[in-house]
Amino acid sequence: MKIEAIDLFYIALPKITRTADGTQDSLVVRVRTDNGLEGWGECDASPLVSMTAYVMPMSHSNVINIREALLGETIDSPEDVIRLRKKAGEYGLDIQQLDHAVAGADIALWDVLGKHLGEPVWKLIGHNVSFKKLPYASVLFGDNPAETRAIADSIVEREFRAAKFGWGPMGRGSLADDIALVQAARDGLGPDEKLLIDAGIIWGDNVDAAYERAVAFADLGVTWLEEPLRTEEVGAYKELSERVRANGVQIGIAGGEGADFYRVADDMMTNAGLDFVQIDVGRIGGITEAKRVADRAHELGIQYVNHTFKSHLSVAASIHVFAGYEEFDLTEYPAGDSALILGLTAPTGVFRDSEGLVQAPDTPGLGVEANLETISQYQRHVKIEIDGAVLFESSQP
Amino acid sequence: MKIEAIDLFYIALPKITRTADGTQDSLVVRVRTDNGLEGWGECDASPLVSMTAYVMPMSHSNVINIREALLGETIDSPEDVIRLRKKAGEYGLDIQQLDHAVAGADIALWDVLGKHLGEPVWKLIGHNVSFKKLPYASVLFGDNPAETRAIADSIVEREFRAAKFGWGPMGRGSLADDIALVQAARDGLGPDEKLLIDAGIIWGDNVDAAYERAVAFADLGVTWLEEPLRTEEVGAYKELSERVRANGVQIGIAGGEGADFYRVADDMMTNAGLDFVQIDVGRIGGITEAKRVADRAHELGIQYVNHTFKSHLSVAASIHVFAGYEEFDLTEYPAGDSALILGLTAPTGVFRDSEGLVQAPDTPGLGVEANLETISQYQRHVKIEIDGAVLFESSQP
Repeated sequence: MKIEAIDLFYIALPKITRTADGTQDSLVVRVRTDNGLEGWGECDASPLVSMTAYVMPMSHSNVINIREALLGETIDSPEDVIRLRKKAGEYGLDIQQLDHAVAGADIALWDVLGKHLGEPVWKLIGHNVSFKKLPYASVLFGDNPAETRAIADSIVEREFRAAKFGWGPMGRGSLADDIALVQAARDGLGPDEKLLIDAGIIWGDNVDAAYERAVAFADLGVTWLEEPLRTEEVGAYKELSERVRANGVQIGIAGGEGADFYRVADDMMTNAGLDFVQIDVGRIGGITEAKRVADRAHELGIQYVNHTFKSHLSVAASIHVFAGYEEFDLTEYPAGDSALILGLTAPTGVFRDSEGLVQAPDTPGLGVEANLETISQYQRHVKIEIDGAVLFESSQP
Repeated sequence: MKIEAIDLFYIALPKITRTADGTQDSLVVRVRTDNGLEGWGECDASPLVSMTAYVMPMSHSNVINIREALLGETIDSPEDVIRLRKKAGEYGLDIQQLDHAVAGADIALWDVLGKHLGEPVWKLIGHNVSFKKLPYASVLFGDNPAETRAIADSIVEREFRAAKFGWGPMGRGSLADDIALVQAARDGLGPDEKLLIDAGIIWGDNVDAAYERAVAFADLGVTWLEEPLRTEEVGAYKELSERVRANGVQIGIAGGEGADFYRVADDMMTNAGLDFVQIDVGRIGGITEAKRVADRAHELGIQYVNHTFKSHLSVAASIHVFAGYEEFDLTEYPAGDSALILGLTAPTGVFRDSEGLVQAPDTPGLGVEANLETISQYQRHVKIEIDGAVLFESSQP
């Protein structure tokens, strides 16, 4: 089949707040083929910046837009998707935003290929089985321990068996303040639930500050300390990981959501001493590249985990990536109440079973469907003109 | 002084050809302050994609545009520029294009600060002296050896003492074809001129293909083989560099223009075995970040060289970065005939002296001035609307 159209939908809640909540807007990408099929994908990135990477005028042979790379191309096999992802990367070699932007198209290509071949994406990318994963409710800290406790209580009520708290006031006060926040989360969850902490790069390159927290949080049974440092501080990460291990501190060091392309993840896995590598399929250039990271993590004995703070389109795409690796048994699962989290794919989604586990589905493609009404309701109408000519204009889904 | 406005100008030649010629368009950034000064900078990136990073709506607390980060801020010292570069990076933490885009503003901030304090940028960023550098004429290969020879002849006529040939047919035919191209360049330049070869990442991750060329080109007195491999193939680069050294092949391995942020350059310097690291100040996030790479290269004993294929605004910005390092004695110097190369700053520019050398000037700021007529003549008028409201519209300079 041939790629006939690539449609871009910028959706957003009416009011965007200045919190670390990535479920407030999205760029949704639809690929349509000449046999009447369509595939869907989602980017975790500024929608407007990413849209322009699909439509901007050529600058030279290494700055050519994604639509130009993909429209009219043939797609009949997994090799075609991999070839086209590579082609888009070559056309957009010098477009920094390329990976964030092309992620949506890459996911949509796997989805439409799965529908075409009648196979789930996890099979197409080389897995033999789709293992169940334990979803952890991924939430932001409350503004103080009491609010954090209330959020933890609500997670238990919703029967999650694991939870991650992140950002908010973490690292903005004293060590004691940070411990009080984590203690509140632990108190709410009870002693047996898995608790993960996301520091939101707050200690920058300060290994001592991060190490102190690692020690204190380990005492509260925290499984991992995520992004204590900035992604690019690979040397500082290494120092931190080695100090944690040398002193027998029982906590993992996690990071990697800032990996915009494969080598950043590989660099962190090889040189930062990570225990968990967290990859956002909507940033790193799609399923094709995320799968490379999962394979490499498997080789290195590092646990691959998805980073996902978007809709169930992204939840589904993320979980297909590492479905077949039994040892990668945790999955980030957005637990907020944004109308985009479930609404974008309602009534389909990646739902928990009776044991509270989730699984990449066996249905063809991603196994979730986009809800056109949600897109229509939340779509922002974008129009870009150059020298008076319309370069791009949003259309109804 | 306070930052009062950040203006964006997308300029382009009337006809863009599909060659690896980055002098066909540009995003020029002007910063205006409340005391009537203005500074100028240039991005080496898709102009439209980069523009949107200055104006796009907030997605959440880590996707906030560059104008929002900088407008109204105070700038009176080098520390302020560094602080603002960091602030823009934090506001745009999850905008992949951030570094390519903010480069223009960062350069403009150094320029305007220099004008404010009456100092050249090289002094503000910590150099004590501005050493002269040997500029190499940077050109593309002709389509065949005869055309390449003619280009080499023209470089000698223009009295350049060094030249780099890149892209075009290199690596697209046989080993013999590649040697014939380099031989033609050498024949034209004569035996004494410095000759550099840029393979334009053509061998991907194929170390054997790159090594064969390294050996053959060394025999033709080539100083470095640039980008034989893709930027992200750090392991393959390492293998190549080690094989070249182990066998005493007299050629350097160069790379780094694909470094979109500091850690990519650091990763290549630390793990790829480079002899020369080539940094584009208009991609890596400006003078602030490029200077970090130059400092690190100095520590590691790797030669820093600018990558520059834009106007003399970028030539000037690039050379200030490493002005004070005497051992970094080469500088890339665009030698094409695009109206944007000289026109953007005409009649100012970074010109060769009687010895054929260039130098970061002593005049305040960058030492070159933008030519408003050139901008007016080549400006593309961009208008971006969201939900019917104008988000951005180009204005006259």
